[in-house]
Amino acid sequence: MKNFVFHNPTKILFGKDTIPSIGSETAAFGKKALMVYGQGSIKENGIYEQVTKSLQDAGVTIVEHGGVKSNPVLSHVHQGIQLAKEHKVDAIVAVGGGSVIDSAKAISAGALVEHDVWKFFIGKKSIKDALPLTCVLTLAASGSEMNSGMVITNEETEQKFGFANKHLFPKVSILDPRATFTVSPQYTAYGSVDAIAHVLEYYFTNQEPYTPVQDHFMEGLVISCMDSCNRVLKNLEDYDARADLMWGATLALNGMTGAGLGKVGFPMHLIEHSLSALYNVAHGAGLSVVIPGWMIYQAQRTPEKFAQFGERVFGKTSGPMEKKAAEGIQALLSWFVKVKTPTSLPALHIPLKDIPRIAENAVGLAKVWRMPEYTKEKIEDILKLCV
Amino acid sequence: MKNFVFHNPTKILFGKDTIPSIGSETAAFGKKALMVYGQGSIKENGIYEQVTKSLQDAGVTIVEHGGVKSNPVLSHVHQGIQLAKEHKVDAIVAVGGGSVIDSAKAISAGALVEHDVWKFFIGKKSIKDALPLTCVLTLAASGSEMNSGMVITNEETEQKFGFANKHLFPKVSILDPRATFTVSPQYTAYGSVDAIAHVLEYYFTNQEPYTPVQDHFMEGLVISCMDSCNRVLKNLEDYDARADLMWGATLALNGMTGAGLGKVGFPMHLIEHSLSALYNVAHGAGLSVVIPGWMIYQAQRTPEKFAQFGERVFGKTSGPMEKKAAEGIQALLSWFVKVKTPTSLPALHIPLKDIPRIAENAVGLAKVWRMPEYTKEKIEDILKLCV
Repeated sequence: MKNFVFHNPTKILFGKDTIPSIGSETAAFGKKALMVYGQGSIKENGIYEQVTKSLQDAGVTIVEHGGVKSNPVLSHVHQGIQLAKEHKVDAIVAVGGGSVIDSAKAISAGALVEHDVWKFFIGKKSIKDALPLTCVLTLAASGSEMNSGMVITNEETEQKFGFANKHLFPKVSILDPRATFTVSPQYTAYGSVDAIAHVLEYYFTNQEPYTPVQDHFMEGLVISCMDSCNRVLKNLEDYDARADLMWGATLALNGMTGAGLGKVGFPMHLIEHSLSALYNVAHGAGLSVVIPGWMIYQAQRTPEKFAQFGERVFGKTSGPMEKKAAEGIQALLSWFVKVKTPTSLPALHIPLKDIPRIAENAVGLAKVWRMPEYTKEKIEDILKLCV
Repeated sequence: MKNFVFHNPTKILFGKDTIPSIGSETAAFGKKALMVYGQGSIKENGIYEQVTKSLQDAGVTIVEHGGVKSNPVLSHVHQGIQLAKEHKVDAIVAVGGGSVIDSAKAISAGALVEHDVWKFFIGKKSIKDALPLTCVLTLAASGSEMNSGMVITNEETEQKFGFANKHLFPKVSILDPRATFTVSPQYTAYGSVDAIAHVLEYYFTNQEPYTPVQDHFMEGLVISCMDSCNRVLKNLEDYDARADLMWGATLALNGMTGAGLGKVGFPMHLIEHSLSALYNVAHGAGLSVVIPGWMIYQAQRTPEKFAQFGERVFGKTSGPMEKKAAEGIQALLSWFVKVKTPTSLPALHIPLKDIPRIAENAVGLAKVWRMPEYTKEKIEDILKLCV
């Protein structure tokens, strides 16, 4: 096992009727908060009302900043920072999924500096402090509610960049599975694919040859994310299924899976970020296309771990290693088809002739993420398998 | 899934050459520390020297409090509290295994109150604050390094009692697998059994009928704890095996496995605590005797989960539920025999005629832990199966 530091201070309040705690939890950090949210779905399902009432009851003055889009953009973050500074807020409250929480994180760090927040993303500045952040989660997917990472798209430069910093852990995140009852089947599946992708990035790019503690944990998460997604798709208001998916997605990227693995890459996210940046596809949809292609490419080179995956996650126990590896990938692909997520670039309406352009974009992020082995040629080869 | 709060603020520094960080990590909390340790093995393997040098280099004045025994006793805790008050220490440093860390936790809470610390254990007072605690772990077993629990034996009343409180989380725990190289095969096995027991308590006393996320996690932990113990017993200085066992034991009781399970009991620990309190047997040895007996008793009543255990942990997939359950229990028992931990009361030199006395003692803790279903008769029936 590689050396590591694990320190995840986020407090999770999980379950029914937990949303009304957002007021008292936030009031512990101050009396004025910027409330960040998305396109307004929270006004339809009652969550907006619950959150604002709870904040007001706790004596917290709200400055609203709605309108976060999926693949959240820098310009909207800039506006939030402006508001936070102008109103001298004490805290940020995020009500939404990963896009909202990531925007809130960027605002929480940007509000305390004079320079452009984008400098953090391109590695020109590093975060030394951030406003306290509390969250009400409405989508099981990104894991942002219990980690220190964030991803933002700079529309001008067409860059979707992300990184992690210890000051970005939310102080408190409230996870009420019922807040996800109104998530559509399509976005439920996208979220599940996102969570599974987070596990697979660590699982397959692990520097250490043998990490049984983490491997078993990750295999269990993949199995339970698929299982809970299947159950949700049968009944969108199955509380336990929504709960299992929500907690599984949180655990999939809270640092526990990766502790001890050493340096890992995020190659599938690397490539997907370019699909989102250039074509604004949903993150989970993009991942669903990139994952099988990347797995096929990588399994041809290092089949061992893919065979273990096929064996332990999908029970593919017979035959040579390459067979088990291929069958495992095929089984995952079949599950994507079953839950109706796209599995080819054409399914995203991206023409294959664009592959060089996508690869060119992805190379930019590969530089920032220090993954020089992901050359334009290699990324093109992988994208050619995403069909 | 049941509602839960998960908040584990302990910072873990894991790996080679991490012990020299204890000085700077402790200095962040003050300039004078009570250093709690055990019977002096740390003076033989060099850890004592590493820790004291690091503390001194960081400008931390050390007040020593060695001599903690396994099954740590209240009288020694009282002495530590006396020392901590007398020297007005700012922090506590624990260097050892679960017994040392638990003693240090009791001292950290007791040093800030005027009443007897035992009042916390019998539920007459509750902990409102504690001195900051940093740890250097030397035994993979208890999980105390990353949780808020502690267990202390009151020699006068022959009570081994334990409980958890949020103020008892260590601030920082340093886990260097090499610090466990000198742990004997016997105590390595006892530690592994302890870690597995922590998992099984949650796994089998779960209030919810279906908890896939937690179940897969726990099954993986049992498998990897057995696997890493086997590897350590082949080579006591196998770094990766020691690391896997150490991290597995920490994860086995850091709150993650139990989040969402609702109310759970700790029946195996309940009964074992009486064996330790009355006969001073090693905790892991006592558990190794109680676990199979309790599992046989419980599987006769609720075989479903035991069948799942047999199937997923030991690959017992054929035949009816009762057969899979029995085969799983037998496989775990066989593993105990393989790693040479005792599996019967006589193997601990405890005469069977003492069963009523042990049950009488355990009923006392059952009251404190609010497990009224564990009557004297029931405990006697279970103990009769521990043969």
